[in-house]
Amino acid sequence: MEMDRILILTHNLPDGDAIGSALALTTALRQKGKTVRATWSGELSSCYKVLTDAYVDEEFEPDYIVSVDIAGVHLLPKETKHLGDRIDLAIDHHGTNSGFAKESLVIAQSASCAEIIMDVIEAFGGTVTPYIGSCIYVGLSTDTGCFRFNNTTPECHIRAAKLSLLGVDIANLNQLFFEQKARARIEIERLVLDGMEFADDGRICFITITREMMEKTGCLESDIEGLASLPKSVEGVEAGITLRERPNGNWKISVRTKFLNAAKICSYFGGGGHTFAAGCECSGTPFDIKVAMCKLIKQEMSN
Amino acid sequence: MEMDRILILTHNLPDGDAIGSALALTTALRQKGKTVRATWSGELSSCYKVLTDAYVDEEFEPDYIVSVDIAGVHLLPKETKHLGDRIDLAIDHHGTNSGFAKESLVIAQSASCAEIIMDVIEAFGGTVTPYIGSCIYVGLSTDTGCFRFNNTTPECHIRAAKLSLLGVDIANLNQLFFEQKARARIEIERLVLDGMEFADDGRICFITITREMMEKTGCLESDIEGLASLPKSVEGVEAGITLRERPNGNWKISVRTKFLNAAKICSYFGGGGHTFAAGCECSGTPFDIKVAMCKLIKQEMSN
Repeated sequence: MEMDRILILTHNLPDGDAIGSALALTTALRQKGKTVRATWSGELSSCYKVLTDAYVDEEFEPDYIVSVDIAGVHLLPKETKHLGDRIDLAIDHHGTNSGFAKESLVIAQSASCAEIIMDVIEAFGGTVTPYIGSCIYVGLSTDTGCFRFNNTTPECHIRAAKLSLLGVDIANLNQLFFEQKARARIEIERLVLDGMEFADDGRICFITITREMMEKTGCLESDIEGLASLPKSVEGVEAGITLRERPNGNWKISVRTKFLNAAKICSYFGGGGHTFAAGCECSGTPFDIKVAMCKLIKQEMSN
Repeated sequence: MEMDRILILTHNLPDGDAIGSALALTTALRQKGKTVRATWSGELSSCYKVLTDAYVDEEFEPDYIVSVDIAGVHLLPKETKHLGDRIDLAIDHHGTNSGFAKESLVIAQSASCAEIIMDVIEAFGGTVTPYIGSCIYVGLSTDTGCFRFNNTTPECHIRAAKLSLLGVDIANLNQLFFEQKARARIEIERLVLDGMEFADDGRICFITITREMMEKTGCLESDIEGLASLPKSVEGVEAGITLRERPNGNWKISVRTKFLNAAKICSYFGGGGHTFAAGCECSGTPFDIKVAMCKLIKQEMSN
C-alpha cells in the first residue's frame, strides 16, 4: 500500500477534539508530502474559523483512511458512513472503541485524541508548527473543559506549557473557545436554566434542549458544545442528564457523572463513551426518557 | 526584629488567591517553627472548607505583619484596617501595588499571588505538602479562571503539573471550585442573564447584582465569585461591566476588558487593578453609573 492519498474521518457533530485532531494530522502529513484531506460534517461555530480558515480542501480517491476520535462506525456522519468498513487506522482515546479499523491506536488514558496525534506527529518526524499546535491545543483544551474536568492529567498541563512555548497563542484560543459565548448561546442558557429539573432529592439533574429552543435562539449545533456539563455542575448532583432533540425527533442523551459509570448507564440504550461522560440516543417523550433514566441511575447508585 | 510571631493579612472579599496564598504561607511558616495566623473576613462559600478545615487559629501579638494579594491598604477589611501602616512585607502580583509596606515583593508578571508564595516557600526551605500545594493550586487556578484567562502563562501550566505530581488532587479541587455551582449560584445566574444589557452596538455589556437578588437566592458573597467575567464573555463585547450593590448602598463596579485598559477606566472613579480586570466603587443609581461608564469606555476606545 502506498499510503500517499490519505482521507481523515471525524465523528458526527464534531467537537474541538475531532476537528483539532483531524486538522493537525492533515497538516503534518502534508508537510511530509502526502496528499491528505480531512472531512467533517455540519456547520461549525465561528470560533473554529481560526483553525479551518487555513485548511485547503482537495479532491482525490484515497488509498488509506484514518479515523480520529471515533469510538465506533455508528458515529460516522451520513456523508462518510459508507466508508465504515474501509478504515485502515483508528486513532482514538475512547476506551469503548469497538475495534472497527484494520489497525487501532487507542490510548484510553489520554484526555484527548489530539494528544495522541501530537505524539504521532512527533513520531513520524513532523514539526509542530504554531498552527498544528493550535489544532492540538483546541483538542486538548476542549476535551478537558480547559483543564477543569477530572480527565485532566499532569501530562495535559505539560503539553499546554510546551504548546504555548512553541508559539501557540493560547490566550486567543481560550478567548475564542471558552471566554466567548455567542449571544445565541447566552440566550439558550437562559432557556435551559428555566427548564432545569431535579430528581432523587437533587442528586439527578435534567436539562432539555428542544429543536424549538435551537430555532428560537438561532443556535448552531456547535454553539451548544459543553452545555451537557451544566446539570452535573449543580452542587449535590451526582448525575447530570441532557436531553437534546434531534432532527429525526429522537433524543440524544448525554450523561455526566461524578462517581457513577455513565458508559454503563448509556449502554442500556445502546450507547457508550467514557466512565464519567457518555451518551446514547432514545425515542419517546422527554418525560418517559427521564423516568427510565432515573430508574437506571438509582439502580446504579444502589450497586 | 524576631519575626517569630507573624500575622498574615488578606484583602476584603477574599478570593481563592487571597485565601490560598494566606493558608499556604501560614502552614509553611509553621513548618519552620514560627507562630503564625492568617486572617480573612466574611463567610466563605462551602468549597473553601477543603482548605480552611485544616487551619487552626491562634491568638497572639504579632511582631511581623505580611499582606498577601493586597494592592493597597484601602482593600483591607474593616477588622484589620487599623494595621494598614504597620505592614512589614507585602507579597503581591498587582502592578498597581501602592508600595504601602515597609518591604514589597511585587511580581506583576505572575498570574496569581499564590505562585509567588510557592517560590517564597521554596526559597526559605519549606516543603510543599499536598495541603500547601492545594492552597497554591486554588490561588493559581481561581486567578486564571482555571487556565482560561489571558494571564495564563506556560509557568502556570508547569506549576499545575508539578503540584499535581506532588500529590495535589486537582480533580477534586476543580470539581469544588469550577465544576460545582451552588443552587443559589445557578438561580442568580438566571436572574443576572434576565437583566443583561448591551450598549454601543453590543461592545459594552452590563450585568447588575442587587442586594435583593442576593437575598432572594440566598447567595453568599463567595457564591458570586467569577460572575463578573460573564458580560465580557459575550461575543462582540469589548468591555464587560458588573454592578454589585454593596450593603452601604454604593455599587462595586468590576470592569473586564479585551483590549482596553480597565485599570485606567476604574482610576477615574478612584479604583484600580490589572490591565484587563479592574474595579472601583461608585455611588448613584445604576443607570447613572452605566451612563458614566459608557462615556468613559467610548472615550478609551477612541484613544
